[in-house]
Amino acid sequence: MQPTKTLKTEPCPVARTVDLIGDRWSLLIVRDAFDGMRRFGDFQRSLGMAKNILSDRLHKLVDAGILARRDASDGTAYQEYILTPQGEGLFAIVVALRQWGEQHLFAPGEEHSVLVDKRSGKPVPRMALLAEDGAMLMPDVTAVRKVT
Amino acid sequence: MQPTKTLKTEPCPVARTVDLIGDRWSLLIVRDAFDGMRRFGDFQRSLGMAKNILSDRLHKLVDAGILARRDASDGTAYQEYILTPQGEGLFAIVVALRQWGEQHLFAPGEEHSVLVDKRSGKPVPRMALLAEDGAMLMPDVTAVRKVT
Repeated sequence: MQPTKTLKTEPCPVARTVDLIGDRWSLLIVRDAFDGMRRFGDFQRSLGMAKNILSDRLHKLVDAGILARRDASDGTAYQEYILTPQGEGLFAIVVALRQWGEQHLFAPGEEHSVLVDKRSGKPVPRMALLAEDGAMLMPDVTAVRKVT
Repeated sequence: MQPTKTLKTEPCPVARTVDLIGDRWSLLIVRDAFDGMRRFGDFQRSLGMAKNILSDRLHKLVDAGILARRDASDGTAYQEYILTPQGEGLFAIVVALRQWGEQHLFAPGEEHSVLVDKRSGKPVPRMALLAEDGAMLMPDVTAVRKVT
């Protein structure tokens, strides 16, 4: 049996990203951080996960430069975890996960949370990969050029 | 300790998507499927993963309606796994994972694979969430409206 490859040195950017955040808990912690969640206890209540696993994932996200740990903004002894600029760059990933789920994982009429533009209160448009001319780029007109 | 929540019935679309494909192997199998990979042995060589885990993940992706299993197109006895239309809808997720990795996980000058528009041969533009007026929507002007 071939040993499991490490993904950290892969020339594929998808592989490196997946290596860092490609697990359900990391992705959901990042989702909650975009919702404004900052404290250990709040993540724990939201996700219903074991404290040792939450602690491990928060540390990994801090080490990866996705979250930053700082003292609570209200002067209490709590620590807060906030998205760094690099962490905020994960927005497109969270939106893409959301929009696929909205389209495929709810029964007709079944309610789900909605991402809205705060200025209009309206749901955000669907995100898509656009070509230079603004037309939607479908997978079949793209190709991955590998490192040679 | 609170038991781990099931995500299948969550009103959050991110949670449901993550429940289905939020693990490194599922995401990388989907990536390879977009690259045109179809056969068990090819996925196995590409990902270097244990055969029993690959088999489990392929079954789950078929059950989820993301991949379809069919007889090989060349008349051999092989089975092929191809993306369904629902699976092709994961393109934005894979592109978002790629583009974040390109930006944050490579040293300056370090080579990585590149997603190109086949018609022009040029790298695809960065994907972003756009407002109705075409301006880029940043996380801080969006909010999640929860199910009440």
